[in-house]
Amino acid sequence: MGRTHSNAYNRIKNFFPELEYLPILKTVCSRSEKKVKAFAEQWGYESIETDWKKVIARDDIDAIDICTPNDMHAEIAIAAAAAGKMVLCEKPLARSLDEAQKMVDAFDESGIKNMVWYNYRRLPAVTLAKNIIDTGKLGRIFHYRANFLQDWTINADIQQGGTDWRMDAAVAGSGVTGDLLAHCIDTAMWLNGAINDVSAVTETFVKERVHQLTGKMQQVGIDDACIFHCRFDNGSLGLFESTRYARGHKAMYTFEINGANGSIRWDLHDLNRLEFFDHADDSKVRGWRTIHVTDGDQPYMNKWWVPGLSIGYEHSFIHQIADFLKSIETGESFSPSFKDALETQKVCEAVIDSANTRSWKDTHVDWTEN
Amino acid sequence: MGRTHSNAYNRIKNFFPELEYLPILKTVCSRSEKKVKAFAEQWGYESIETDWKKVIARDDIDAIDICTPNDMHAEIAIAAAAAGKMVLCEKPLARSLDEAQKMVDAFDESGIKNMVWYNYRRLPAVTLAKNIIDTGKLGRIFHYRANFLQDWTINADIQQGGTDWRMDAAVAGSGVTGDLLAHCIDTAMWLNGAINDVSAVTETFVKERVHQLTGKMQQVGIDDACIFHCRFDNGSLGLFESTRYARGHKAMYTFEINGANGSIRWDLHDLNRLEFFDHADDSKVRGWRTIHVTDGDQPYMNKWWVPGLSIGYEHSFIHQIADFLKSIETGESFSPSFKDALETQKVCEAVIDSANTRSWKDTHVDWTEN
Amino acid sequence: MGRTHSNAYNRIKNFFPELEYLPILKTVCSRSEKKVKAFAEQWGYESIETDWKKVIARDDIDAIDICTPNDMHAEIAIAAAAAGKMVLCEKPLARSLDEAQKMVDAFDESGIKNMVWYNYRRLPAVTLAKNIIDTGKLGRIFHYRANFLQDWTINADIQQGGTDWRMDAAVAGSGVTGDLLAHCIDTAMWLNGAINDVSAVTETFVKERVHQLTGKMQQVGIDDACIFHCRFDNGSLGLFESTRYARGHKAMYTFEINGANGSIRWDLHDLNRLEFFDHADDSKVRGWRTIHVTDGDQPYMNKWWVPGLSIGYEHSFIHQIADFLKSIETGESFSPSFKDALETQKVCEAVIDSANTRSWKDTHVDWTEN
Amino acid sequence: MGRTHSNAYNRIKNFFPELEYLPILKTVCSRSEKKVKAFAEQWGYESIETDWKKVIARDDIDAIDICTPNDMHAEIAIAAAAAGKMVLCEKPLARSLDEAQKMVDAFDESGIKNMVWYNYRRLPAVTLAKNIIDTGKLGRIFHYRANFLQDWTINADIQQGGTDWRMDAAVAGSGVTGDLLAHCIDTAMWLNGAINDVSAVTETFVKERVHQLTGKMQQVGIDDACIFHCRFDNGSLGLFESTRYARGHKAMYTFEINGANGSIRWDLHDLNRLEFFDHADDSKVRGWRTIHVTDGDQPYMNKWWVPGLSIGYEHSFIHQIADFLKSIETGESFSPSFKDALETQKVCEAVIDSANTRSWKDTHVDWTEN
Repeated sequence: MGRTHSNAYNRIKNFFPELEYLPILKTVCSRSEKKVKAFAEQWGYESIETDWKKVIARDDIDAIDICTPNDMHAEIAIAAAAAGKMVLCEKPLARSLDEAQKMVDAFDESGIKNMVWYNYRRLPAVTLAKNIIDTGKLGRIFHYRANFLQDWTINADIQQGGTDWRMDAAVAGSGVTGDLLAHCIDTAMWLNGAINDVSAVTETFVKERVHQLTGKMQQVGIDDACIFHCRFDNGSLGLFESTRYARGHKAMYTFEINGANGSIRWDLHDLNRLEFFDHADDSKVRGWRTIHVTDGDQPYMNKWWVPGLSIGYEHSFIHQIADFLKSIETGESFSPSFKDALETQKVCEAVIDSANTRSWKDTHVDWTEN
Repeated sequence: MGRTHSNAYNRIKNFFPELEYLPILKTVCSRSEKKVKAFAEQWGYESIETDWKKVIARDDIDAIDICTPNDMHAEIAIAAAAAGKMVLCEKPLARSLDEAQKMVDAFDESGIKNMVWYNYRRLPAVTLAKNIIDTGKLGRIFHYRANFLQDWTINADIQQGGTDWRMDAAVAGSGVTGDLLAHCIDTAMWLNGAINDVSAVTETFVKERVHQLTGKMQQVGIDDACIFHCRFDNGSLGLFESTRYARGHKAMYTFEINGANGSIRWDLHDLNRLEFFDHADDSKVRGWRTIHVTDGDQPYMNKWWVPGLSIGYEHSFIHQIADFLKSIETGESFSPSFKDALETQKVCEAVIDSANTRSWKDTHVDWTEN
Repeated sequence: MGRTHSNAYNRIKNFFPELEYLPILKTVCSRSEKKVKAFAEQWGYESIETDWKKVIARDDIDAIDICTPNDMHAEIAIAAAAAGKMVLCEKPLARSLDEAQKMVDAFDESGIKNMVWYNYRRLPAVTLAKNIIDTGKLGRIFHYRANFLQDWTINADIQQGGTDWRMDAAVAGSGVTGDLLAHCIDTAMWLNGAINDVSAVTETFVKERVHQLTGKMQQVGIDDACIFHCRFDNGSLGLFESTRYARGHKAMYTFEINGANGSIRWDLHDLNRLEFFDHADDSKVRGWRTIHVTDGDQPYMNKWWVPGLSIGYEHSFIHQIADFLKSIETGESFSPSFKDALETQKVCEAVIDSANTRSWKDTHVDWTEN
Repeated sequence: MGRTHSNAYNRIKNFFPELEYLPILKTVCSRSEKKVKAFAEQWGYESIETDWKKVIARDDIDAIDICTPNDMHAEIAIAAAAAGKMVLCEKPLARSLDEAQKMVDAFDESGIKNMVWYNYRRLPAVTLAKNIIDTGKLGRIFHYRANFLQDWTINADIQQGGTDWRMDAAVAGSGVTGDLLAHCIDTAMWLNGAINDVSAVTETFVKERVHQLTGKMQQVGIDDACIFHCRFDNGSLGLFESTRYARGHKAMYTFEINGANGSIRWDLHDLNRLEFFDHADDSKVRGWRTIHVTDGDQPYMNKWWVPGLSIGYEHSFIHQIADFLKSIETGESFSPSFKDALETQKVCEAVIDSANTRSWKDTHVDWTEN
């Protein structure tokens, strides 16, 4: 993710030159000096560090972008908050609700800006979905469904741990729930409000994998697949599924929302398109519209090319950092903040808990009593 | 459904002239003499009846096709079995597992042929899916998902009862579970084997509707929407959803199955197409294939038109009756029989039970102990 | 085509019982007594004939349906006209403009009803396209494009002549121009008005094929592929292409029409769908709508199943004969008549002539001076 | 186009750090000092110029990127060649074949590297199409068809001239032929070889528009739409259409190629996808594959994100400059060069000539005799 973030910082001046605050790439930090030097050269960082604590100690730095494996998020973020630095943290916020809550608390006290890289909100088609929903055009919502389907871990030779830290429960916290469903949940609650309770099932199809650090075959602790249904606070039913075992799907993140007067659906594989069904259309010629979201009057697209010309995945990161910088300029709040991401973490924790106990779980957890 | 069945019987001689046994439309029965007379004239029935018991009593009749509301299935079928008549029954088999079991028992004793109109199996694209799966080409199965989405009951002015008997729990037994999910479950178990246990949620979005017979506003007893996840006996995860509140979907029945080596998906809205992902394809040019199932070497299609020319929904009924007649000729068993439909009924019952109790339910119910 | 027509006649009573005139299948004629007997049995014809002149001579026959190879159309139709019989003729009307004109003349004198089986007009989605255009909703028309792509003659072992009469120029008149483009031209002129002039190119990719009757390798006289552009009388540009060498397309007949205020497109492979772009939609959510033409308020669909359930290719024939019978009842004119088909023939003749001379050709030919 | 090119130069170091030669943005030139200053600041140019001749005179500059309106291409390019500078020129190469030939001649003498921005070749899906074709997998080619459909000039209030120079024949040379069809022709000849002769029609739907510079209503000289068919040297038939009057299409550039053993099609609106039909697939499960070209083993994609994540339009420019820089490093030739673009210009000229004379035109023009 270091590349997508670095790319976003580099693009801001080109495409959002009107912003008052522009990013300056003061330093980049990683344990390997050799690798981080090359990275800094490639992406235009002014200096390098190999100890993240030194980054936090530097006076010339206002904001820290955390791209580490999940097990480092909390420690770094809390230290950064203590040092009065803004934090832009990769998702999921943390490995657990407990960690996430501490991160939120750290910033609550400091009052400093923070954000989490739930970047999909800022793909133009997804933002357009939000805009349509906010007009009330869909009417009462009955259904929300989302899935995030991949197929890259079917091969049993893939290892866990080390560079494959997403396969290691100790580092990642969970499998597809934190990695993929967290994205779906963030978008869902942004579009359709809070989730009340969940009933989930998880599965680990490949039970043992070699651990990259020990070289030994070890039990796999992550969830390879997770399905849950839920009720939203607005009375609609939700349905979520994520897996890394859906052959033929590389990164198929889709969502659909059905209201009394209209419906919307979207697929990351074709990220410039939004499908919209408007029941107000004349019944004889009513149908799902496929909107190619590339016009200047559609979200963010006045920054890019002429109508009809697509943008890509990485643009969501550029939009997010641009909006974050704008929020500093205007003093408005920015979402998704740590607090927003905490809500997603609550749902993830309830999902895992529900799967483990084979029972419904309330997501509005009071974590302090856990 | 009387029209689709009558159409199927009328088409057999035209398109399957090689069959040894051809249907003869001896009589058609309905309470209204006027209506049934017109129907008999339109569809070529030789006579009419207004009392179903008289149909069963007639010597010149070998088989009874039950197209009544669900609350009549059991009584008629059991009487027919007792009279030694074959029965072709609309789905779902019955309102409850208890009724369904009695119907199966009635035929177990008689040894007479029976079948249930789970017609979607015999759309060429669906049969092709079965053929692909049977070759083992998909490898170990990880996921099965299906949904059946409609939008026709969003309008709160739609009544329950009478001609809208599908909205009346007393007559229909359940809502979308028996009406729509039953189709999905039948196909799923045919393609992917038995379902072990389920966790479900149901919702009734419109709580009260006028009852057509009483003219009074009454509580709605059916499920407007139902979602469940499950485990199949083969270790794969299942996910099912059905609703009549998905604006923009008229009869969107889709399924998808993901195996280690390939995946398949299908959508009733485009019933002549099957999508197939074959991981054995060269990685550089690998993708989902959309197979237009209209070639002479694809299931049933040598009976119809030249390649590229579509058939419709009603053809599934023609194929089913043709296969049923062929099974009489060859003495082979026919599926879906009452026994097969009983398995679907068990899952439906477990689904409703799970939703009512908010807990996982085993589908391999020993009903006698209920 | 005998099967599709026979099927249509058999379906009328089932689905259009309200018609005053219903077809009675008095006789069917073919040279082979054995084959025609089996056919009559299969499709319910009351008698058989092996000499078409005897059919025309029979007093109990009101209408003749011509399903012969193209080289017999004119002779039979003219004889039928002389005998005062209605004629329903397969397309193209004739092998040449000269033949076609004589057929029209024969009926002009008699005043008897006639029609040509340009059946695609009466697929519900195509009729819906016509209805939309007739409202004027598309505004000034700029472009019309259509193609009919098949791939069945790529194999050089396919023969010409005999049962493969479509490959024999002497019998068929032309190749894809009369067989496939004629359909495209009929629809185009129905939807967008007369064609003024054309510039065409044809190609015969396989130059020699064995003739089925002589057993000898002979030069191929038909056009394997034909492309032409043209101007319609309304000022729009037209573009047409047809081939039997487009690998991967079985029967891909598509058309698209672009007007100042909207556009429409359709594909025979997905015949229940119509795509419609309405520029009047709000620009932020504007897109191509895919209309699943299966609702009761859409053309012909109140005769079939519930919304969402598809019909097939053969239904276009049923609709055409139903409309023809209705026109007898009401005394209204029926289109496409021989006269309408003559206009299509004029364009086909101009297309072939243009390709042969590598020059633009006017389609409003005064044939008598040819 | 200055933005897309500048973006490409800025991205090279980030995504192709291994290249020996990296672009240095020495200067940017435009007539308006104020605008060019802002542009230089935004995109990181080291200096500005307002007279292009000064740019060519500078010793610290090795290459000139020409992004001017078409009427300036020849003069600048020829001067640059004389000064020994490489040139990267926007398409079309020139307003006329005569100009284009002079540009080629200027570089023939100098032997200096040059290229033209026919960028679509280097979208990964299009490059993959080329790779498939080069394997011979499609067999003998029968058909090539392409179109480029837009709708932005339907509004008669759009002016010609000035900033709308694409609408002014004196500046642009032609309308859609040079602007859009030139892209289609470049790709076509790259994929399917030389074009032999053409037959075209053009149309100007809005005959008069206000000229931005004069403020007067003046006759429109450009072609609003252009259609042509042609024969390729390999015997296949070609079909091309372009328009700015196809309501509902913003930038729909599609091509399809049909061979004896397979077919390929692509659409710029969904630029990450390639559709491929392989006749070698088992006939029962044969269909068009939609390849989501985002895997690391597909062209250019090892430079970007993980499988399934899309790239956009602008990436084609980045790939082109990367390949150009690599060709300097390796000493290999680069295509499309001026010479390649001259071939496209010959076809464009023949197309316009054919439309004007309503006759077939040979594209292998010996321009010196014109």
